[in-house]
Parts: sequence; structure tokens; C-alpha cells
Amino acid sequence: MLYFDSDYMEGAHPLILEKLMETNMEKTPGYGTDKYCESAKNKIRMACNCPAAEIHFLVGGTQTNATVIKALLRSYEGVVAADSGHISTHEAGAIEAGGHKVLTLPQKQGKILPEQVDRYMETFNNDQNNAHMVHPGMVYISHPTEYGTLYTKKELEDLGRVCRKHDIPLYLDGARLGYGLAAEDTDVTLEVIARCCDVFYIGGTKVGALFGEAVVITRPDLVKNFFTLVKQQGGLLAKGRLLGIQFDVLFTDDLYIEIGKHAIRMAEKLKNGLLEKGFEFYFESPTNQQFLILDNQDMDRLSEIVSFSFWESYDEPHTVVRLATNWATAEADIDLLLESV
Amino acid sequence: MLYFDSDYMEGAHPLILEKLMETNMEKTPGYGTDKYCESAKNKIRMACNCPAAEIHFLVGGTQTNATVIKALLRSYEGVVAADSGHISTHEAGAIEAGGHKVLTLPQKQGKILPEQVDRYMETFNNDQNNAHMVHPGMVYISHPTEYGTLYTKKELEDLGRVCRKHDIPLYLDGARLGYGLAAEDTDVTLEVIARCCDVFYIGGTKVGALFGEAVVITRPDLVKNFFTLVKQQGGLLAKGRLLGIQFDVLFTDDLYIEIGKHAIRMAEKLKNGLLEKGFEFYFESPTNQQFLILDNQDMDRLSEIVSFSFWESYDEPHTVVRLATNWATAEADIDLLLESV
Amino acid sequence: MLYFDSDYMEGAHPLILEKLMETNMEKTPGYGTDKYCESAKNKIRMACNCPAAEIHFLVGGTQTNATVIKALLRSYEGVVAADSGHISTHEAGAIEAGGHKVLTLPQKQGKILPEQVDRYMETFNNDQNNAHMVHPGMVYISHPTEYGTLYTKKELEDLGRVCRKHDIPLYLDGARLGYGLAAEDTDVTLEVIARCCDVFYIGGTKVGALFGEAVVITRPDLVKNFFTLVKQQGGLLAKGRLLGIQFDVLFTDDLYIEIGKHAIRMAEKLKNGLLEKGFEFYFESPTNQQFLILDNQDMDRLSEIVSFSFWESYDEPHTVVRLATNWATAEADIDLLLESV
Amino acid sequence: MLYFDSDYMEGAHPLILEKLMETNMEKTPGYGTDKYCESAKNKIRMACNCPAAEIHFLVGGTQTNATVIKALLRSYEGVVAADSGHISTHEAGAIEAGGHKVLTLPQKQGKILPEQVDRYMETFNNDQNNAHMVHPGMVYISHPTEYGTLYTKKELEDLGRVCRKHDIPLYLDGARLGYGLAAEDTDVTLEVIARCCDVFYIGGTKVGALFGEAVVITRPDLVKNFFTLVKQQGGLLAKGRLLGIQFDVLFTDDLYIEIGKHAIRMAEKLKNGLLEKGFEFYFESPTNQQFLILDNQDMDRLSEIVSFSFWESYDEPHTVVRLATNWATAEADIDLLLESV
Repeated sequence: MLYFDSDYMEGAHPLILEKLMETNMEKTPGYGTDKYCESAKNKIRMACNCPAAEIHFLVGGTQTNATVIKALLRSYEGVVAADSGHISTHEAGAIEAGGHKVLTLPQKQGKILPEQVDRYMETFNNDQNNAHMVHPGMVYISHPTEYGTLYTKKELEDLGRVCRKHDIPLYLDGARLGYGLAAEDTDVTLEVIARCCDVFYIGGTKVGALFGEAVVITRPDLVKNFFTLVKQQGGLLAKGRLLGIQFDVLFTDDLYIEIGKHAIRMAEKLKNGLLEKGFEFYFESPTNQQFLILDNQDMDRLSEIVSFSFWESYDEPHTVVRLATNWATAEADIDLLLESV
Repeated sequence: MLYFDSDYMEGAHPLILEKLMETNMEKTPGYGTDKYCESAKNKIRMACNCPAAEIHFLVGGTQTNATVIKALLRSYEGVVAADSGHISTHEAGAIEAGGHKVLTLPQKQGKILPEQVDRYMETFNNDQNNAHMVHPGMVYISHPTEYGTLYTKKELEDLGRVCRKHDIPLYLDGARLGYGLAAEDTDVTLEVIARCCDVFYIGGTKVGALFGEAVVITRPDLVKNFFTLVKQQGGLLAKGRLLGIQFDVLFTDDLYIEIGKHAIRMAEKLKNGLLEKGFEFYFESPTNQQFLILDNQDMDRLSEIVSFSFWESYDEPHTVVRLATNWATAEADIDLLLESV
Repeated sequence: MLYFDSDYMEGAHPLILEKLMETNMEKTPGYGTDKYCESAKNKIRMACNCPAAEIHFLVGGTQTNATVIKALLRSYEGVVAADSGHISTHEAGAIEAGGHKVLTLPQKQGKILPEQVDRYMETFNNDQNNAHMVHPGMVYISHPTEYGTLYTKKELEDLGRVCRKHDIPLYLDGARLGYGLAAEDTDVTLEVIARCCDVFYIGGTKVGALFGEAVVITRPDLVKNFFTLVKQQGGLLAKGRLLGIQFDVLFTDDLYIEIGKHAIRMAEKLKNGLLEKGFEFYFESPTNQQFLILDNQDMDRLSEIVSFSFWESYDEPHTVVRLATNWATAEADIDLLLESV
Repeated sequence: MLYFDSDYMEGAHPLILEKLMETNMEKTPGYGTDKYCESAKNKIRMACNCPAAEIHFLVGGTQTNATVIKALLRSYEGVVAADSGHISTHEAGAIEAGGHKVLTLPQKQGKILPEQVDRYMETFNNDQNNAHMVHPGMVYISHPTEYGTLYTKKELEDLGRVCRKHDIPLYLDGARLGYGLAAEDTDVTLEVIARCCDVFYIGGTKVGALFGEAVVITRPDLVKNFFTLVKQQGGLLAKGRLLGIQFDVLFTDDLYIEIGKHAIRMAEKLKNGLLEKGFEFYFESPTNQQFLILDNQDMDRLSEIVSFSFWESYDEPHTVVRLATNWATAEADIDLLLESV
């Protein structure tokens, strides 16, 4: 069986495991106060060209989103997001459990556009009853989006501008950021993101790490005592160095970008191969997630040799499925898949 | 420098790292639905002699406490705990962030005793104003306690009885459970705990794992949809097998107990050596944490060669400090320490 | 100026004020344990033909919704509601502040229909990822709706059936219930509501009381210690008899229905008068709120003599406005309004 | 039977009811935007000599405390209070339901003293583990306290100084403020309170109003969008003028102070009468609550003619009971009581 279900099916990049082995019996202080965390933070600050950034390592994505959003909002505020956003749909109400409403805008290929946000803010500001409503207190986007699509540099800059105009922070969920940065025609770099966003996170779990997400706060004045909030939200790892070591390896010699590029090459090969064979895609995704429209009979046949994710019903006789590549995808598996269909 | 600061200064037991290496490139489904989790759960059920137990793996202790307590309580209920309990003091308000009050009882050597709990419940039930008060909805204990002390089998059985009498669940925080089970004169086994408690967790982070805690729900009817709550609370690991693999190793060939015993041997040697040299202990701890009363000048001198934790001020010229052994403590370090003091 | 802005512009029905005067210097125990509350509860039980109902008096609507929803849901659950529902839009995030997501369905004239709810539940139950999603734990409807429309008896019965099928409670927000019960062609009575809903509230604030809402729990086994939850949520009035007295008066000699009928007569006269003059309505409302589509110039002219609520933009040159009658509306004011337009 | 159970057994001062009658059929806009609220706010500002104060009217005390505390704290912060404080004991966990821990200090006659707070803050600031702990984010006191005692002007000034030193706000719960201001030897005035506290509330429910509490924010920059938070917390009254009218009457011609003085005269007469007859008091209370130590047999006999509150067990054969006077206490009832004992 060939597995393209998701981008978190394997362990970690071998260099990471190697470093974990090598350092295993060292004794370091806990909770991220060790030298590996310090080193990793410095490398990330440099990669973002943001020397003043405050950086924290958390374990997983839902936890990271819930913690950052709780840190940024006051209790009468909500977070603006695409209706397809991860926080809107697949985090089991983590944001609401923290007391905040997710204020949804209709997604455009998984994205929310600057003009949508601007219009939403204007409408809210002009609503005579807005004192009875949840105040939009920040904007959440993800890059790549749930649909594998990417913002352009201009869109991010404009989103940043709109947010500053309305005095609310912009937060970017980068669970799959490595695959976004490595995409072929993107003009979005870590530096661009650090410039446009007030807070964002660099995903490790889906991009080569065993687990872990690096929160980058580019405007540290926005958030006080984030460490304590992380502890309260259950996101603080006792052996914090495990996160530092992983991100230190990922940000050494551009490993994070390099393994992203591998996943993209695999995804492009998969996409082009399937296009040649006449398959249709749900939308054009430049990243590691590919969304295929399959005739239901084809789907059943394919599922005997390939494991993938059900995405959604397209119409009665067709289904959208997702195939994901990642840093560990073997080219031979792509070849096998293309031969078999 | 000799490090006795805490029991989470190293990585993982070598057998765990070995298994993580060996399985690294396998592809498994996410979120704990893999075969390693299944295997680990079965081994834990057997070790607890509780075949019906529902088992979940979470990443860390604060997260586990917050999630279990949220699962067990209704919104008008609080959790009864020792005033020295971890949830009362060092979890940054995680329980309150979930909406629940910690109802504290004065600790007796870190413990709360069955008769204290019974009296508290009776007093609450007889209070004419109790409808205006937080209802005690469960009892939280830890074993070993924050002070390294242990409940006896009889105390646990009596606590279980009191809780059943008042129809509230008993929950045991086992962050350091391995060191409790391995103590020299204890009559408390995993089976006893599983029989007395409705929910408890077996700590991995401090007992040989990189991270991870195994929640054992011995009365699964008490808790519905715990998986979703874990997701909501940010405790669900995408690569869930990392937890399954670790606990599978720990519960193979009694490794969990064996490494516990090592830590206890080291702690006993340390304690006896220091007693011989005339040092005084804050209380008699049968587990891996030892609390020493030091003259402040001795403390300063000692701190040049040994790293330990400040615990609390004893009186003007004396301080209580904590030294912790663990699964990885080298006997040579104990010898060196004893020679140096 | 003629005021038709809302249904809460005056104080209370004179009979209520009279009774408050008459009882003012009596001394009664607090928090709703007095004889007036007892009497009012009995009258409401009788009016609902539901002798086993548990009844609580709260002060306001948002508070009531937040408290009931918190009482009915577990932390991983959300409440299904129309996207136009009051809890979705104008309660400043009170439901989310309590930790719960509002799961919205597209409104049909302000309502959600049984088949919508059924389909939503089926889709959720069949979703392979539903363990990662907020579980729908109850259904919220309002009657009349935000748009003044009414459910039919059959719709309520079917909603009740769908909810029982999926084992979730049905909750009805009756902020304006008196105006719904008094509508001309409705077949929905208090008895029907008590039979179909697990919990509902009878609105006082907008229907003749100074303030106050009566929560009717027709299945008391569903909710434990509601009193304590009301206290916790800030909904418990120290001088609870103020609520008992008001509802006792409202449920004596059918006053609640009678004043509802007056408001409906006034609304019908207003509607018919405006229809005759060629005005257009946004939808057909059988209750005390009437939604008018006005040419913007007409609107400006009208607003010089009549005060009303802006509802929403219809198109560039037209606006939807709301005019509300209530128990206190003077027929002379309707006549004046109709003469003036 | 003579009733001295509490200070909320009657309705409202006759002047308030009169004004409610007089204004009953006026039509005013909702939610506190009417002229009566405006007028009441101005009178309160003047009485506090604090022209810049932001004032909001809420319905009840628990709600007010929960809302103010939620407005002032960030999620990692808790509120410092006496262990006997109302928020610590009798608000059913309302503060924790809002996500915040109550950090208790041992009460001294119901009070917490400036040096206690200062020491607590210093200890917290010096604790090496404080990043893992709830941060003290504000101080809560009540005046009069739960035990009827009063702060002195100097104590309030010092508390204010300590709070400013540590950069946390001071909040005063004035549920019974009128009885505190009217006490015989107090040097604390509304002006003093407004100068020392960042937020406080003037209690109406227990001091002549049907219900209602006036929140005075003397440093409006501390709290943004309080109106929306009040709405979210269920504390916003639709017919907001009911609160405005009541406080407008209470702050006309010093009514609030005058009725306070009456209650104090009655309490003093009661106290002196009982002292003469040899009764013993639990502590010296200068306000409207008097705490009597009764032999249990005396208590049983007394309870046949007088209704009072059980406070706590004193020792096996004695009990502490509370008798409360208020604005409505008839002198004849005091005479009768004194004759009967």
C-alpha cells in the first residue's frame, strides 16, 4: 500500500533523531531555558531577519493557536478567520473553550483577502449595535491554507496594512509553512511574513520534526507573560530542549527549506503525472497537498493500492480526495502511484 | 557540577530512543490510532489488572490535569486538593482557566487524608448556604505527593470509599508514579491504584520517557468523548505513536518499575549518606525527591559543586532544598556528592 | 415624536407596579425562596400543563441563554442555532465566553427547520473527522424569531422528534413569547411548547414586566443544581420575589396572553394600514415586530415624526427598518403614524 | 416574628418606587442610554468628586464582581482577596468560571492589610518559579467587609499606594457601602474611596434599591469596552433606566447616606441594648451587621420570636449568629427584640 494520507505519518528527519540521540544523556534545565532553545531562537530570528522577535516553542498546532489567540484578545473580542480555517472547523472548539468567538468570513480558495477584512471591520465599526456584538480583535490566516493555497506577498502586505489601519494584530498559522516557503512561484519568504505579521508560527510537526511549533512574536510589546500563558494552556514541555534541538537542526544549513523543496518536487511530479493521465484537480495547489476530483468507481479502485484522505463530496458520482507529500516522500512511491492509475 | 535539580534533566531511557529510531520511517495513521498505542494500552491494562480501562496518552502533566478535571466536573463544581497540590500552586491557574475552583484542604505531609475529605464533604452538605458555593465535585491527590511522600494502601482504599460514599470521583496525579511504585516499603501497586481511583495518570515525562502521560480511566462511563476534549485542550499529538511507542517500551519487561527502583536506590544511598554526615531532612521521603534542611552558608558552599532546587525558607539561617534522583542518576555522582559535603 | 423603536421602552404593566407597591415593605427571604415565586411557579406549571416542570426566574435574556446553554452542554459540545439567532449575533459572545461554540445553520425566515437539523446531525455523525470537531449538543431556537416569524405546531413537534432521535435537548428562547402565543393564526400554545422542548423561557422583559425571564425545565433530570449555576453566572436576584411577583401577576387571569393580544392588534392595524398605503414589507411577520422596506428618502422624512430601528440595507436606495408594538402601544399612536405617512 | 435575617428582605425605599411609578409609561431608549442614567451618573461623579469617572449600572453583586474582575485581569492573572471575601466563598465560583484564580490571604477581622498585600507581592516577585504561577493582577477588598468591619482612611490610602507600587489595580466591593459611609467613627468617604481605588461599586440592592450596583471606574484608561463585557456577562438591563432612576433618587438630597445612617442608628441601638443585657459579640462591628455569640439554648429560644442568620459554630455549646438592620428597620422592632431577650 502507498500512503499519501497526510504529512505526519513518519517520525522525524534523520538529522533530528541523530541529534536527539547524541544529546540524550546531557543534563539541562527544564522548560526551554537551555542552550539548545537559545541557539534555535537565534537561528530563527536570523532567518526572519527580525532580531527583536520573541520566540516560544510549543508542542502542537491547536494548542499554539489557542494560546496565541488567548494572549492577543480581551474577553469581549473574537478572531476573524476564513470559514474553512482550521480554528473554525477542526480544533474541537479550542478557541471557544478559551472564551472567544471565531468570526468567519467566506473563504476564497482557502484565503481571506485584505478587502474582505477591511469591509468587515468597516461594517462592524459602522454598526449602531456593535457594542452588543463580539469585537473583531485580531485576524487569523494560515499559509499554506487548509486547501494548500498560498497568499502572495502583496496580499500579506495588504492584510498587514488593513490590520494596522484597524489596530488589530495579524496572526499567521504556519503549520505547513515549510511547504509554503518552498513552493515554486511564491514571493513570500520568512522575512516577508515577519514583516507583515505580528505573530506567526513555524510548523515543525508536519515539516520534519517529531512535533513542535515555533511561535514568533515580532511585536513583543503586544503580549506579556506569554510563558505563563503557555504553562496555563498546557503547552509547556518540561524537557523543553527537545523542541530547541529539533528547531536548531531544522534551521541549520537551511534544512527546513530544503526538505520543504523535496516535498514540493514530489507534489509537482504527482500533479503533473495525474494531469497527463487526464485527472482533474479541485483547485490548483502549489504546495504539498493535492486535491483530486475522482469518479467514485475510480476512487474505490485506487484505494486498493493508495491510501489517501476523503476531503468532501463533489457531486453524486464524484468525490474530492486529498493526497499529501512531505519531507519523507519517496520518489519511487510517486512512480508506483502513477503507474498504477 | 553535579546536577540534582529535578527528575527531567535528561532525554529518554535508551531503549525508548532505540525504538523511536527503529520505527522512524514507518508510516502510521495519526492521533493515537496506530498499533503502538494499541499495544501500549493493552500492556497498561494488564499491569493495572483492569481490562475495561480506557486509556489516553497526553503530552504533559498540567495539560493532563486540566483535561481530566474538565472532563469530570460540571461547571458549578470544583476539585478538592491539598493546598500544596501541584494544581493549587504551580500550574499557572490551568484549572481555573478551565472554569473550576481548586478547593484546598491543609496538607498533611503533602497528603489529604480520608477523614479530612469526609469532614469537608459533610460540612459542605450541611451548610445552609451551599447552593451559593462551589460544589466539591471530585478529589485530586498525587502519589508521590509534591513532598515525595506516599499514601498507604489503606489510605487510598479509604479515600476511594469516602469518594464513593459522597458520589464523587477520585483522581490521582501520577507524574512521578514510577518512583512511588518502586519505593521500598510501599504496599501500593498499580492494581491498588486502579481499584481505588476512578481516573489516574501514569507519568512518563519524569520516569524515563521524553515526554508523555498515560491517563487510565477505570470507570469509562464517567467520561464521554474524552478524545475530543483532549483535542480541544491542546493535548492531542498528531504523531500519536510517539507516545504509544514510549509507553510500550516502558511497560515491556517491567521497565517502568525497574528504572523506578534504580532512582529509589540512588535516593536511599544519598539520604543515608547525608544522614550519616549529620544532615537533617525536612521530612522523611521514601521516594526520589529528598528535602534537606541546610544552613545557608553550607548551602552556598554546596551550590558550588552541586546544582539543586530551592524549596522554601526554613528559618532565617536555614533553607530547605530539594535534590532529585531519577532513572538516569549515576551512582558515581552520588559518591562524588557524598565525598564533597 | 412617535416611538416604535423596540418593545422595551416603557416600564411595566400597571398591575405589576401596583403589586410591587403593595408588597414593598413585606419582609421575605431572598433568592427566590419566597411565597410569590412559589405561587408564580405553580401558575406557570399549570399554564404549561406540565406539573413536573422545574422553574427558575432570571433577570435578562442574554444571561438566561448563557446559563441554560452552559447547564445543558459538556465542554466539547456546541449549540446548533440559526445564523440569525440572537445568541449568534447580538449577545457579545456570551455563549463563547462560557466555552461553547455556536454552530450556525442558514436561517429560513429566521427559523431552522427540522430537516435542516436532522441533516446537520447526520452529516456530523458520518464525518470521519468528527472527533476533532465540536459536537452538536443541543438545539437553540427562538419563538418568535429575530424576524418576528413563528414556528408552526408541526415544526416544533418535528424539531422535538429530531432532537430526541439524536438524543440532544431542544431549547426555545421565548424573549417575545407572549407576542408569539397571541398571534392570530398560530397553533402553538404554551402546552405545545412544554411538550416539544426540554427547556424554554417565557420572556417578561419585553412583555409587560420591568424585567425578568422564567426558565421552564420540562425534563428536570437533564439539569442538576441549576440554582448554583444561576448564582455563578450572575443571574440570581437577591430580592428574588421581585421576579415572582411580576410573573405571578402576568400569569393571573391570563394577563400575559391578553397584553400579547393587544400588541398583536396594534401590529396588525399598523401593517394593514401601511399595506393599504402601498408600503412593502420585508417579510410577512405575524407578531409585534414589523419589517418595512423603505425608500431612503421616505425613511428620512418618516424619521422626523417616528422613531424606529434600522434593520439592514436592502439595496442602494432602500433600507429595511423595524417598527415594534408592545403591551403599552397606544392605538392613537398608530392612527397618528398612519395619518402622517 | 421579627426579621433580622439580612439587609435585602424588603423592596425599595418609597421614594424610589414613587419615581418608578411616575416614569412608568415614559418611552426611553434601552441599555442605559437614557436621561435618568445620565443624571444619576453625574450625581455620583459629583458625590465622588471624580468628574472623569466612567460609571456603569449592573443588576447584582456577583455579576458585578465577576465582570469587573474579568475586565481588569489578563488570563494569566488572579485576584488577591481575603480568604473570607465574598468572591472567595459565596459566589459559586463566578470568578473561576471567568477563568481566574482567587489568591487568598488570611483575613484580619475580614480585612486584608496593606502590609499583607505588599509582602505577598514581594514574595511572588522573588519566587524563582513565579512564571509557573498565577500572577497577582489586582486586589479585591470589600467595605464594609463580610464581617461588617471597616477599613480606615489610612488603610485605604496605604492599600492604594501598595497597589500602585506593584502596578496592579485596587477594586472595592461596596455591596453595603452605604452602611460603611454612615458608620459613626469612620473617616472614609466616597471621595476617599474614589481617590484610593481604581474601580469600586456602590451597592444599591442592600441599601434602599430594588436592585442595582453602580460601578465607578476612576481610571477609565484601565478598562476598554466595559459596556460590551457587561453585555457578555449578562449584566446589561434592557430597561436600563430602572437602574438610572434608582440611583438618581438615591443620590438626590443625600438619600443614600441618610438611609445608611438610619440603619446604623438601629444597629447601634440593638448592639448597646444587647450589651447591656450581657450578650457577647463576636467582633466589634460598626455597621449594620451585628455578630452575636449565643448559647445554643438561648439561640433556640430566641429563634421563636426573631429570625436571624446562622453564621458559624463558635464552640460546642455556642453559635455565632448575624442580625442585620437596614434602611427599613423599624425602631419598634428593635424595642420588641430587646424586650423579648
